[in-house]
Amino acid sequence: MRPLSECAVTIVGLGLMGGSLAGALQGQCGHVIGVDRDAHALACALERRFVDQATADLGAAARKADIVVLATPVRSIIQLVGQVGEWMKPGSLLMDLGSTKGLILAAMAQLPDHVQPLGGHPMCGKEISGHEAAERELFDGCTFILSPLARTSDEALALGKALVESVGAQPLVIEGGRQDYLVGTISHLPYLLACSLVSTADATTSADPLVWRILAGGYRDTSRVAGSDVTMMVDILMTNREEVVKAARVCGEQLAYLADLVDRGDEDLLREKLTYIRKTRREHYP
Amino acid sequence: MRPLSECAVTIVGLGLMGGSLAGALQGQCGHVIGVDRDAHALACALERRFVDQATADLGAAARKADIVVLATPVRSIIQLVGQVGEWMKPGSLLMDLGSTKGLILAAMAQLPDHVQPLGGHPMCGKEISGHEAAERELFDGCTFILSPLARTSDEALALGKALVESVGAQPLVIEGGRQDYLVGTISHLPYLLACSLVSTADATTSADPLVWRILAGGYRDTSRVAGSDVTMMVDILMTNREEVVKAARVCGEQLAYLADLVDRGDEDLLREKLTYIRKTRREHYP
Repeated sequence: MRPLSECAVTIVGLGLMGGSLAGALQGQCGHVIGVDRDAHALACALERRFVDQATADLGAAARKADIVVLATPVRSIIQLVGQVGEWMKPGSLLMDLGSTKGLILAAMAQLPDHVQPLGGHPMCGKEISGHEAAERELFDGCTFILSPLARTSDEALALGKALVESVGAQPLVIEGGRQDYLVGTISHLPYLLACSLVSTADATTSADPLVWRILAGGYRDTSRVAGSDVTMMVDILMTNREEVVKAARVCGEQLAYLADLVDRGDEDLLREKLTYIRKTRREHYP
Repeated sequence: MRPLSECAVTIVGLGLMGGSLAGALQGQCGHVIGVDRDAHALACALERRFVDQATADLGAAARKADIVVLATPVRSIIQLVGQVGEWMKPGSLLMDLGSTKGLILAAMAQLPDHVQPLGGHPMCGKEISGHEAAERELFDGCTFILSPLARTSDEALALGKALVESVGAQPLVIEGGRQDYLVGTISHLPYLLACSLVSTADATTSADPLVWRILAGGYRDTSRVAGSDVTMMVDILMTNREEVVKAARVCGEQLAYLADLVDRGDEDLLREKLTYIRKTRREHYP
């Protein structure tokens, strides 16, 4: 494998994540080829000099690449894994940026032998999507999970780490299934909670037009991720169903438990529980 | 009643809200007297010139005031309302900054006739508390709910509005019970959701130390208000029990409904629901 500085990197999908990665890779690798079905995103990425070449021809772009990074919604990644392998050069590396890993890694296990697979999941994002939202600094300081398969070579993992570090992120190697369990609770559950909050306000207080004049920071922040791209989130939820449903059930029980303490007026236990939660949260964000 | 510019304003409780109000009132009224049981908060407020006088003597400070603002946790406000009325001057104004209004307004209804009552609730805050967190700009642009009683004179309401506007906030008059219903959903429910999320992570994924290395923005923002001051929040929850419990139940049902769509793999309905929620959220925050 070539060093990153000489690699041609093809990025498939130039939305928030793929577009940002393309921009961040400028000057770090040989050159960046952007692939998208959307002519506007291609033109935009070229004009911003986030890519050196822009094309809708996936096959041609995959053939030229030392590294291909799939940056589309999860189920589209799974489909693409099945297509691009045969086009890719011997010894080339196939990565992705998908937010769930189980099904993607299963698809990667079926790649032709001449391609090295490596799952990837940067722990960053914004609730706005599309190429316009892309920015070179998106990965600065973020943790970037790498999920090697049993068949992934040390060299391929090292190249993946080099790519991650070159865009300012910190690589963290995690085995696939474990990651889906973790992000089910700390990433997909917050999305469902934000949606439930918006839905609750919509079903009850929104009948009173005053409510939108008194929204404060608590509602704004707790509901923020409900603005996330729906296609991306449906793919995430549908490819991590078991973990997401389990996390939602545990959280529903926690909410019912706290509400019950309030209902019964069990102030001592409520205070104890909330104090522990506050302390826990402050340990995460000192 | 005197114009605000000539009023002596006594603020009881120099934490985040009261301290910020004191600072913001500098130059807007005659002078500001700060009352707190905590000598450190008093010294700090004096040193920052957020107050012109600082004292632990509530009676003396109430006697001197044209306006008294109670800025302690809700149940302490309820107690104080029962004490300060007899000390206050004829024609003076008693306000509060409490986050629930039903019980506070009921206590204010019992004030001696010579005192004008006016409920207040600024829709701003931070998850950090105490005088150190106070800042003159806290109220800039925020909606500040005012809750007059039947006995509140037009003149008293006008003086309350002048005070609110003088610190950069926008007054909004809302009848008491209605406000508790609204904030139960858009302010107290987000707190319980944030706590439930932290509690869920603590009960499940926190056993894996990796989880704290992959926390992303969704968890951070959705859990933010779980860091709120517990004494303040217990008072809020305990004085708005009915509305909070109702809101938590509706939200628990919404969460269970979304999780069920994921569980059943009912993708069309899930997409439809999430698309509607996203649109709703974007209407609140264009």
